[in-house]
Amino acid sequence: MAKRQLKLGASLNGVGNSISFWRHPNIPINASVSLDFYKEQALKAEEGKFDLLFIADGLFINEKSNPHFLNRFEPLTILSALAGFTSNIGLVATLSTSYSEPFTVARQFASLDQINGGRSGWNVVTSPLEGSALNFGKGEHPNHSLRYEIAEEHLEVVKGLWDSWEDDAFTGDKENDVFFDRTKLHTLNHKGTHFSVQGPLNVARSKQGYPVIFQAGSSESGKDLAARSADAVYTGHETLEEAREFYSDVKEKAIAYGRKAEDILIFPGIGPIVGRTEEEAEQKYQEIAELVSIDQALNYLGRYFEHFDFTQFPLDEPFPEIGDLGSNSFRSTTDKIKQQAREQGLTLRQVALQASTPRTSFIGTPDQIADQIQEWFEGGAADGFNIRTVVPGGLADFVDLVVPVLQQRGLFRTEYEDDTLRGNLGLKVPANRYTLETVQ
Amino acid sequence: MAKRQLKLGASLNGVGNSISFWRHPNIPINASVSLDFYKEQALKAEEGKFDLLFIADGLFINEKSNPHFLNRFEPLTILSALAGFTSNIGLVATLSTSYSEPFTVARQFASLDQINGGRSGWNVVTSPLEGSALNFGKGEHPNHSLRYEIAEEHLEVVKGLWDSWEDDAFTGDKENDVFFDRTKLHTLNHKGTHFSVQGPLNVARSKQGYPVIFQAGSSESGKDLAARSADAVYTGHETLEEAREFYSDVKEKAIAYGRKAEDILIFPGIGPIVGRTEEEAEQKYQEIAELVSIDQALNYLGRYFEHFDFTQFPLDEPFPEIGDLGSNSFRSTTDKIKQQAREQGLTLRQVALQASTPRTSFIGTPDQIADQIQEWFEGGAADGFNIRTVVPGGLADFVDLVVPVLQQRGLFRTEYEDDTLRGNLGLKVPANRYTLETVQ
Repeated sequence: MAKRQLKLGASLNGVGNSISFWRHPNIPINASVSLDFYKEQALKAEEGKFDLLFIADGLFINEKSNPHFLNRFEPLTILSALAGFTSNIGLVATLSTSYSEPFTVARQFASLDQINGGRSGWNVVTSPLEGSALNFGKGEHPNHSLRYEIAEEHLEVVKGLWDSWEDDAFTGDKENDVFFDRTKLHTLNHKGTHFSVQGPLNVARSKQGYPVIFQAGSSESGKDLAARSADAVYTGHETLEEAREFYSDVKEKAIAYGRKAEDILIFPGIGPIVGRTEEEAEQKYQEIAELVSIDQALNYLGRYFEHFDFTQFPLDEPFPEIGDLGSNSFRSTTDKIKQQAREQGLTLRQVALQASTPRTSFIGTPDQIADQIQEWFEGGAADGFNIRTVVPGGLADFVDLVVPVLQQRGLFRTEYEDDTLRGNLGLKVPANRYTLETVQ
Repeated sequence: MAKRQLKLGASLNGVGNSISFWRHPNIPINASVSLDFYKEQALKAEEGKFDLLFIADGLFINEKSNPHFLNRFEPLTILSALAGFTSNIGLVATLSTSYSEPFTVARQFASLDQINGGRSGWNVVTSPLEGSALNFGKGEHPNHSLRYEIAEEHLEVVKGLWDSWEDDAFTGDKENDVFFDRTKLHTLNHKGTHFSVQGPLNVARSKQGYPVIFQAGSSESGKDLAARSADAVYTGHETLEEAREFYSDVKEKAIAYGRKAEDILIFPGIGPIVGRTEEEAEQKYQEIAELVSIDQALNYLGRYFEHFDFTQFPLDEPFPEIGDLGSNSFRSTTDKIKQQAREQGLTLRQVALQASTPRTSFIGTPDQIADQIQEWFEGGAADGFNIRTVVPGGLADFVDLVVPVLQQRGLFRTEYEDDTLRGNLGLKVPANRYTLETVQ
């Protein structure tokens, strides 16, 4: 039997998810609305045989939002644009069930799935931000459990609409003037608690049946929705232990719903920083740590020390002697900070910058990062990873340096297995519910 | 002063708008969901220096709908996909104000407009089909005047959201950690009769300011909406006289709203059939006329003759002698049919086929069609035309044979003037409402 294969996604996020990434000299300030920037990343990910591109989203901003959120592409439009430049990589768009119409969602995803020949995915989210309601004329943002109740029904309606046409409905018999077989057109007639949708949908299924369903919430309701209805989960964890716990929890829940463990794939998001040497990786880390303004960093550091004002000390001299300060609140953290500063002879600036840009275990040489990935993948914590760019060129570094190591180890493909997203992820094409009925 | 220039759009419609066009041997039965088919037409239209591609839409189907409507691309996704293959041509998508959220519409069009660098247009429609309500959980389809009232407010909200960011808001000062100028971010806070939308929008304007606003309804409410708020009107007329009347009516209405006549462009839709000779054009017409099944055609013909059953006569013998039949209902039409049949010695089959596929004045040689276009354009009936494909290769014929004639006559560009849709149409970039306030 062939070795179990790792799956890889690339999260595309323009000027980055952090407040400060845009300040790096190599990041164009219009990256979040630059087709060229997105296209370059998409082509690089496809060169690296990645399974998919992933676009996150949000429906509310104010002046405090992170730069990337203020002015960015809408997911379905940018992925449709990227469809034409790519041929095998999957295209996964985030879209909220709290502020959309199932008929429109079903249509736009089905259309994207026709455009790209079965490479689409939908990351189902419920919109965490309260303010979203204000942009959609809703009095109140639905509470958490109601949002998930709406999401369940929304997703069921969308899947129902996707089945409107059986796969062999369009016979196109020109001679006899029969464009389609009327017995293979189905009207959903859904009347539920939150939605009432008749159908049929005016787009047929692609060859992958449904777009791949992602889910990205880690609450109990989120895991439940995923276990019941999703093909894949996008998640985030600080440690291997946390990731393992989440992984086995979701798989067990899926099994409890009568599914197989392999029917649902878990993708932790990671932001690897790759260097040819440890020193190079460290240098890249330092470059992004320093993008956080020193005021922001000192303020952030101060919060661990009972809101202590560190601005009274010189920045480039050794970390100041501050006695017991901090021991009453975040004692383990503050003790560790003081100890590292003393042992490594760090300045106040260095300490502050490291505190505001946490180190993950995915920083190092290609082999070190491949080791971590392998440990998570073989250790019951991940079926794949969503790679986030946290340093300029981070995706290219990963493709050029880490992917070859993963390939040498037999963990990752050297060629695409298929031209659909389901095919590459090893997921089954869901049978059309009506075709099933006929066969049984 | 340079000669007034004609504008040209190409309606892309896969297997066609008629019930029978898909039966032509040269039309692939999946044309309405084929990226290759759309891409080829888009490239051909850009080769012909067309101003824009136009995608119509609808939100309700049943088994009696025309083939193209049953399974076709959703406009925003297919136009986003075509953005990457094209560089100057405009991309105009139809989207209904009756069944969409202004925030989502503003966002998807603004995103498309960033993707293609200012080449987008929105054809604002209100959805004529009653059944649409059933797909969007609405009890009742809003009546005609209510739909237009909703459309006015919807469009105002969308334009307001498009102004969320002034054009120079994103200063991107890396040194001083200032991503944008907070005085240039604006929150709409719209609270109206039909919509309540706070903003701001999370996409900035493109260099054309707003996507070009098309309007496509010919009722009084439709003309009024266009005269007040649209940049262009897509319309359809059988005769030059009708087109002239419509043209001057809309222009006068626009002037009454304080606009200039040239602020709103009128695009009649035409389906030209071009032949190198008159005979070739006639042959192409016959080919499509014959695609209508003879049963459909006889049934259609019978309706003019008090639902007379023509199937009792042999098809390929001279049109039967039926006395006074038809003189009580559509007398002028039925008299003309009988007279033509007699004079030209037509068979029943020929008469039936011609009745079901009406001839327009846009059938003939390149010069004849250019004459018609020039007559409408210079005769106060059109600022441009939307070219519909009614015979296979119809768009390519138009580009290869008619466009050169129009260019020789100095009526149509030989190179694009600009890379935005507004620029090519000669429309002004609308000032941001907030920037205006500051300047005044």
